[in-house]
Amino acid sequence: MSEKKKTQMNKTKPASNKSAKKTKAAPKRAMFKPTVSANNKQKKPRKPKKIIPAKPPIKVAFLGGLNEIGKNLTVFECEGDIVIVDCGMAFPDGDMLGVDLVIPDFAYLEQNRDRIRGVVITHGHEDHIGGIPYLLAKVNVPIYGTPLTIGLIENKLKEHSLSAPPTLVKVNAGGHIKLGCFDIELIHVNHSIPDAVAVAMHTPAGVIVHTGDFKIDYTPIEGRMTDLNRFAALGDEGVLALFAESTNAERPGYTPTEQKVTDSFEKLFSTARHKRIIIATFASNISRIQQIINCAVQYGRKLAFSGRSMINYMKVAQELGYVNVPDNMIIDIDQLKDYPPEKIVLATTGSQGEPMSALSRMAYSDHRKVSVGAGDFIIISAKPIPGNERTVGNVVDELLKRGCEVVYESMYEVHVSGHACQEELKLIHSLVKPKYFVPVHGEQKMLQKHRALAMSMGMPSENIYIGDIGRMVEISENGIKEGEPVTAGKIFVDGLGVGDVGSIVLRDRKHLGQDGLIIIVASLDVYDGHVVSGPDIVSRGFVYVRESGDLMDDIRSLSNDILEDCSRRNIHEWGVIKNLIKDDIAKLIVRQTGRSPMILPILMEV
Amino acid sequence: MSEKKKTQMNKTKPASNKSAKKTKAAPKRAMFKPTVSANNKQKKPRKPKKIIPAKPPIKVAFLGGLNEIGKNLTVFECEGDIVIVDCGMAFPDGDMLGVDLVIPDFAYLEQNRDRIRGVVITHGHEDHIGGIPYLLAKVNVPIYGTPLTIGLIENKLKEHSLSAPPTLVKVNAGGHIKLGCFDIELIHVNHSIPDAVAVAMHTPAGVIVHTGDFKIDYTPIEGRMTDLNRFAALGDEGVLALFAESTNAERPGYTPTEQKVTDSFEKLFSTARHKRIIIATFASNISRIQQIINCAVQYGRKLAFSGRSMINYMKVAQELGYVNVPDNMIIDIDQLKDYPPEKIVLATTGSQGEPMSALSRMAYSDHRKVSVGAGDFIIISAKPIPGNERTVGNVVDELLKRGCEVVYESMYEVHVSGHACQEELKLIHSLVKPKYFVPVHGEQKMLQKHRALAMSMGMPSENIYIGDIGRMVEISENGIKEGEPVTAGKIFVDGLGVGDVGSIVLRDRKHLGQDGLIIIVASLDVYDGHVVSGPDIVSRGFVYVRESGDLMDDIRSLSNDILEDCSRRNIHEWGVIKNLIKDDIAKLIVRQTGRSPMILPILMEV
Repeated sequence: MSEKKKTQMNKTKPASNKSAKKTKAAPKRAMFKPTVSANNKQKKPRKPKKIIPAKPPIKVAFLGGLNEIGKNLTVFECEGDIVIVDCGMAFPDGDMLGVDLVIPDFAYLEQNRDRIRGVVITHGHEDHIGGIPYLLAKVNVPIYGTPLTIGLIENKLKEHSLSAPPTLVKVNAGGHIKLGCFDIELIHVNHSIPDAVAVAMHTPAGVIVHTGDFKIDYTPIEGRMTDLNRFAALGDEGVLALFAESTNAERPGYTPTEQKVTDSFEKLFSTARHKRIIIATFASNISRIQQIINCAVQYGRKLAFSGRSMINYMKVAQELGYVNVPDNMIIDIDQLKDYPPEKIVLATTGSQGEPMSALSRMAYSDHRKVSVGAGDFIIISAKPIPGNERTVGNVVDELLKRGCEVVYESMYEVHVSGHACQEELKLIHSLVKPKYFVPVHGEQKMLQKHRALAMSMGMPSENIYIGDIGRMVEISENGIKEGEPVTAGKIFVDGLGVGDVGSIVLRDRKHLGQDGLIIIVASLDVYDGHVVSGPDIVSRGFVYVRESGDLMDDIRSLSNDILEDCSRRNIHEWGVIKNLIKDDIAKLIVRQTGRSPMILPILMEV
Repeated sequence: MSEKKKTQMNKTKPASNKSAKKTKAAPKRAMFKPTVSANNKQKKPRKPKKIIPAKPPIKVAFLGGLNEIGKNLTVFECEGDIVIVDCGMAFPDGDMLGVDLVIPDFAYLEQNRDRIRGVVITHGHEDHIGGIPYLLAKVNVPIYGTPLTIGLIENKLKEHSLSAPPTLVKVNAGGHIKLGCFDIELIHVNHSIPDAVAVAMHTPAGVIVHTGDFKIDYTPIEGRMTDLNRFAALGDEGVLALFAESTNAERPGYTPTEQKVTDSFEKLFSTARHKRIIIATFASNISRIQQIINCAVQYGRKLAFSGRSMINYMKVAQELGYVNVPDNMIIDIDQLKDYPPEKIVLATTGSQGEPMSALSRMAYSDHRKVSVGAGDFIIISAKPIPGNERTVGNVVDELLKRGCEVVYESMYEVHVSGHACQEELKLIHSLVKPKYFVPVHGEQKMLQKHRALAMSMGMPSENIYIGDIGRMVEISENGIKEGEPVTAGKIFVDGLGVGDVGSIVLRDRKHLGQDGLIIIVASLDVYDGHVVSGPDIVSRGFVYVRESGDLMDDIRSLSNDILEDCSRRNIHEWGVIKNLIKDDIAKLIVRQTGRSPMILPILMEV
């Protein structure tokens, strides 16, 4: 395949006028249309030959989405223009205590703000749109996406007060966006949210295809399938590089069609004839909700929603016509009591066992409006994201203890993935026939599996580049090579604070969380340093103080001895005194308890 | 099946003299041998008939192992005698911050110490033996088990200084232990540690079979397979109740034989011909280590061990002859440098991605003696325990980034479970033919699946009891019913402290870990309460203090205002003053940062 590509011409298809009209006016710039001779060797220097300019390279910097799941953000640069694909957030790891969400470091984009022509969003999942409010707070750049994606972004931005109004541009799948020297084409793909697209970037360097998140469903719920023909046409015209997602690169075979889920739902609805049905799924999986609506209609049940994010997503999807709901079908959660259980379906958040979610609240009898029991048939239409297996398992156990019937992962086909498995990835590779390949969206093991997959299809390993956050890669017809690194990293969002929690704060949180703390506070005489008041001992998260009176007395007495000793020896530097206390008290505590709480001596002068 | 049972006699097989000799002398007590007439109806009261005494019931209390994985401890009581089966620990959940391990609450056993005849341990895993040192510290009771199990317990007890020497009794599988009215028979089973047993308890109430942890491997590495014939014989004689483990009750089919792992190892050893091989597995999986030894011999490699627990297990297993190691086969980790990589196998701990384990240290370049790279072929011969998927994935990613080749879960058959799947469970049920069934060892969803499995084989649901920690069940020929609950719960071990960390300490740790803390400290005049020194603000785990000067100034100034205001208004009750500070500072902080750190006002009198 790659041998063939080497002699292929790169024919860039210009943007059609029709679709270009839809996009926001971009700075005018002639499209660079190179012609390349089949033979570059110049053997006759005397005859001044028309120099064929080499195509410029395209540079690609990764600010997120590599060696991690989440906060996808890729920066494409060609002839000075910058186009950004996706701007997501990630959920914090277990060791990022108290952090609400993680966003990419935007420093590189701030430094190059004048060159950014726009941000193209492939679909409306949080790991692709969640960073937008924080980016816009730094750099006001136009955002492009399909109608549902832009609708979800609009909804998200309502919660953030931006100083300047954002420029949000809706472009339908199949349309083109002209951004500097980039002509960007949106290609419809299937995913676990409707209106998802891949992008083909027609650039002076050649055509770059970025799949976004995708799968290939020949019988999708939403009607249209992944536009394989367009991928094939691009492949025929010549693609310089393919950036393809790797989430399921470790999984052999195909992701089953969503129709499997419909079949399972129908069976389960008929089994649960006399019970209330509760289905937990991802709030953003609007096709799944459509399946639930269809089943509810078929079995004569009303549908209610529980969970703020599900209500939000449904609102946007309904306004924009992405769900098809018969009149009087949806009821408010407060109306549940007006219907017998067997006439109700309740769609809810919490399929990942999130502690504050609606389903968890039901499981732990903490939901204000819904209490569950033997009359409930509960379907968890989702798979635990790695790391959530235990919380999901706990919720299932609680529901079972209350007598609910629970259908969960792998018991029936009540969930299918939104991502392409190995055979689907191979199909895209074979249609697109790229010269170079960059696996994206995945942890190292997935990226490496995806590389192995491409190599198994004949791609030479030197044509494949596995990147990392902060890396820049330069791609041209002559090769793919690593460029200068760019500033990149994780920025933590905690409450209203963006970036004010860093490694020291997290280290302290971890220490406090694991071992608690001991505060030793004393007032010292300003002249001779002897103890005027205290030392008092305050502890939190360490031991039951009431049952540890002796230990507290020992700490107090030792602290007092150290302070008086310092006073006698004319040691008045507080840094020195505090370190003496910290060291000796730490030794005392570890000897008596085997623990190492944070020790905070606080001295006051009076 | 159960219909048949109803008319079956319960023939208790007395202990054989030979095996009874091996056990510690138990208080002499006549074995209760009831005879039961086939027809209990007494229709002729006049003729004084010999009264056939009804069999006594057996009571079973659960102190652990139900609705959880770990800290297995079941208490069997008959005619006043108590026999305990297993005494395990559990690992802490994510919300048990700083807790090292969790043990059962032994209060019920302390209250009934005089009636405890002994503890029978089914095998040497931590969730079956880990609680023993803590139990022995409270109640000095004899411990019985197979030689390897007792060897591992001995080794464990060395780390604990007990006031009285423990009584540890080795009994071979097949042997009997006489404990009060209980005659306990140990039945060999396959599991992921050698010398595991099920127990058959011959009691005045009838025969109780407890499987312990088991699987059925027709071609086990250790040579002997689960003693199916003995289970069958017991079933023919009549079993009152079966207690069977439920770990894999959700998994259809059979657990594959360990020989599958041998086959995979052989293939991989031959693939990795020119590389160093590193295999991570559970330290206790001694048969797996034997497989590694066998492969190393076959491929002419030396074997080294890394990880304290693996070295410990190997020491005990070698001393007791549970591994077969050729001379000069094992080398010390310091000798690795004396051999070329292709002549080495390194067996290591860390198959669960534990942060401090040997494999994690290698992955993060933090191992003092081993650094890994492109010359290493690493096999993770284990499956992540639910909840560990993410940490294991991270370790795999780091190893891959360093250029190692890594074979991990589900890529090849490099691991098989130690627990029986559905078909194996059914086999035991069908051999043992119990009248009553109690699923044990598992979360609610597993227990319920196991119940469904028994019901699918014809057992009536009223003959099945799903228990919980603290529940007591009474079983007799007339039925199975719930008794009085017993004291039970989780005791946290943190460092040297047992039980001194409870819900309040954990709540504080969580709060501190999530949001950090703000300390406001001031010295007040003892007479009028005005501020003599301070208020000073100390924060940890909250924000970068250096970049939050304004916020700190606001907190200081507001605290000062509150204190001076209290002084003016003659408010001298410190509780009141502290609450005023807490409330107002909390509001200030949440407004400015959206966060809720712990706020600790500390006042001193001078």
